[in-house]
Amino acid sequence: MRKIGLSEIEDIALGASLLGAGGGGDPYVGKLVAIGAVRECGPVTLLEPDEVPDDALVMPIAMMGAPTILGEKTIGEHEYQNLYEMVSKFFGRQVYAFMPMEAGGVNSMLPIAAAARLGLPLVDADGMGRAFPELQMVTFTMGGVSATPMALVDEKGNSAIFNTITNKWTEELARAVTMSCGGSVSVSLYCMDGATMKRYGVRDIVTRSQKLGEAIRKVKSVSGKSPEEAFLEYAEGYRLFKGKIVDVLRETKGAFNYGKVVLEGIGSDKGHQARIVFQNENLCAQVDDRIVATVPDLICLVDAETFIPVTTDALKYGKRVLAVGLKCFEMWRSEAGLELVGPRYFGLDTDYIPLEERANGGEADV
Amino acid sequence: MRKIGLSEIEDIALGASLLGAGGGGDPYVGKLVAIGAVRECGPVTLLEPDEVPDDALVMPIAMMGAPTILGEKTIGEHEYQNLYEMVSKFFGRQVYAFMPMEAGGVNSMLPIAAAARLGLPLVDADGMGRAFPELQMVTFTMGGVSATPMALVDEKGNSAIFNTITNKWTEELARAVTMSCGGSVSVSLYCMDGATMKRYGVRDIVTRSQKLGEAIRKVKSVSGKSPEEAFLEYAEGYRLFKGKIVDVLRETKGAFNYGKVVLEGIGSDKGHQARIVFQNENLCAQVDDRIVATVPDLICLVDAETFIPVTTDALKYGKRVLAVGLKCFEMWRSEAGLELVGPRYFGLDTDYIPLEERANGGEADV
Repeated sequence: MRKIGLSEIEDIALGASLLGAGGGGDPYVGKLVAIGAVRECGPVTLLEPDEVPDDALVMPIAMMGAPTILGEKTIGEHEYQNLYEMVSKFFGRQVYAFMPMEAGGVNSMLPIAAAARLGLPLVDADGMGRAFPELQMVTFTMGGVSATPMALVDEKGNSAIFNTITNKWTEELARAVTMSCGGSVSVSLYCMDGATMKRYGVRDIVTRSQKLGEAIRKVKSVSGKSPEEAFLEYAEGYRLFKGKIVDVLRETKGAFNYGKVVLEGIGSDKGHQARIVFQNENLCAQVDDRIVATVPDLICLVDAETFIPVTTDALKYGKRVLAVGLKCFEMWRSEAGLELVGPRYFGLDTDYIPLEERANGGEADV
Repeated sequence: MRKIGLSEIEDIALGASLLGAGGGGDPYVGKLVAIGAVRECGPVTLLEPDEVPDDALVMPIAMMGAPTILGEKTIGEHEYQNLYEMVSKFFGRQVYAFMPMEAGGVNSMLPIAAAARLGLPLVDADGMGRAFPELQMVTFTMGGVSATPMALVDEKGNSAIFNTITNKWTEELARAVTMSCGGSVSVSLYCMDGATMKRYGVRDIVTRSQKLGEAIRKVKSVSGKSPEEAFLEYAEGYRLFKGKIVDVLRETKGAFNYGKVVLEGIGSDKGHQARIVFQNENLCAQVDDRIVATVPDLICLVDAETFIPVTTDALKYGKRVLAVGLKCFEMWRSEAGLELVGPRYFGLDTDYIPLEERANGGEADV
């Protein structure tokens, strides 16, 4: 158990934005929401998973929708309150703690804001260890946990509770309502007891985000190494490519941001070209004719100078970025994990090959 | 208080199908569902509105979606049970009686089936006195009654409960989910107390449907009058046009059936042409260049020989039909009523002129 205050929030937002792998929302927007809540209501208690009783009700909270829209709509304070009341009423008992569902600039911050405003603790775990675009893509789905009852509220005051036969159906129905509500909403789903959270959750994700954020902040002051070396070492990242953004294709469809970014190599990558496709999050990175990383491994773009993560909604022509691969949470590499979030689910015509194997060379496969 | 058994169901389905004004679903499908339930569970008790206590919880039940789809999907028995449990749980009290929300071949029948299967009475009132395509189009909206909490279930077992800031928002969100669920779902909305039902409901709609059905069934045996005269007299209908269907344009979009039917005059209408546009229900009838009826008045097509109503999803090239206008429930002719269901809401470029005035001649206005 420890406290999360303003300085922790800065680092968590920064680090979570890296783990967002291009998605998870604009950390600037997310940070403002969390800082506002903590300034007004005081710091938040962060619980280690094992500090939560097995029978306690844990309530995840997140935003659903296209990150570009999510950054433009107001996130109302009453939304947490509405979600909290819907969940308490549905289960007929008190919520013990909030938890995040994914790591990302917004989705790591909202649970902090909710915890501050409602005076509840936050659990140091989530369901992805990164961000993914669809709501069934959580470790809890592999554990057979139902996404529903799922509560959904918009900033206008509309709300819905879903109960579905599969988590894919939750995604279908909630996505349809999200679009009708203007493209982004606040949700609570995968409400579970402490025992389930401990068994399937990705532990220590808030703390990991915070440490990553701190490392990014301090990367230039590490002695004896170049900032890039220091960054890669600390993030345990694989250097995929460094280049200048020469093209961004983007489309908002079905409350998702779909697109592709093209990089022209700089430095040691001069003369080469990289292409990264995304659906909210980066899905596949290719250098020339060779795939260098795919989901579920994390493909992260960071500013080539400051190492600050660049989310897919902030991609801009001319920006110089470093593409980095991070290994995903081990459970995603299982057969069940790859069925949920492997490259073929997203329509990519390749099997999953772990990042570290792709990084060690191998034949061109495209 | 009286009982509804198999013979009553036959007449109610027939009459309600006329009041469906082209929509409300296929009476054959609806009838089968109600007959199956009554055969298995016994007849249903029909309550006059005044027999319902003021504080009793009344639960409307209906299908939402495109009639063409609604006729193709199975209507599962467990759907009523699911809806009933969702509503009881949400309100934390017992449901006193079911009621229909609109008149129509399916939507007059489902509440009978639900009442039979769950052993509850049915109230002789609805919220339209006809059928309309969108869910905010009920007398209760004029009374300031909220459509929500609205319960929605599909045949697969998915469900949702909505709470919205306006009844138009309920329509938006529920329609989106209806589309995702395959185009039609079962719903309960405008749950209300007995006092509200008595104040704003369209009374005696089940009985009126039954009497109309009986009249259609017996129309050929009336002596001293042609069947057409007898039908028009009993239905209090205005003869709009008689013709052969020469064209049907139909499109399913947003879980609605949109379209247009063109009639070539026969008999005394020979040499003239009529066009009727619909959105699930018939919205506007025009003979040559003159509008002869618009919403909220009922525009009904019936078989030219048998007077059996023809719903918009059953329109077929070559069929000979009589187009008849029926006066709508008086409340729809108020300013508030016309705002909800007047011709301009549906994008028709005409003011509302009561059917009986249009029928008495007047200038061409198209």
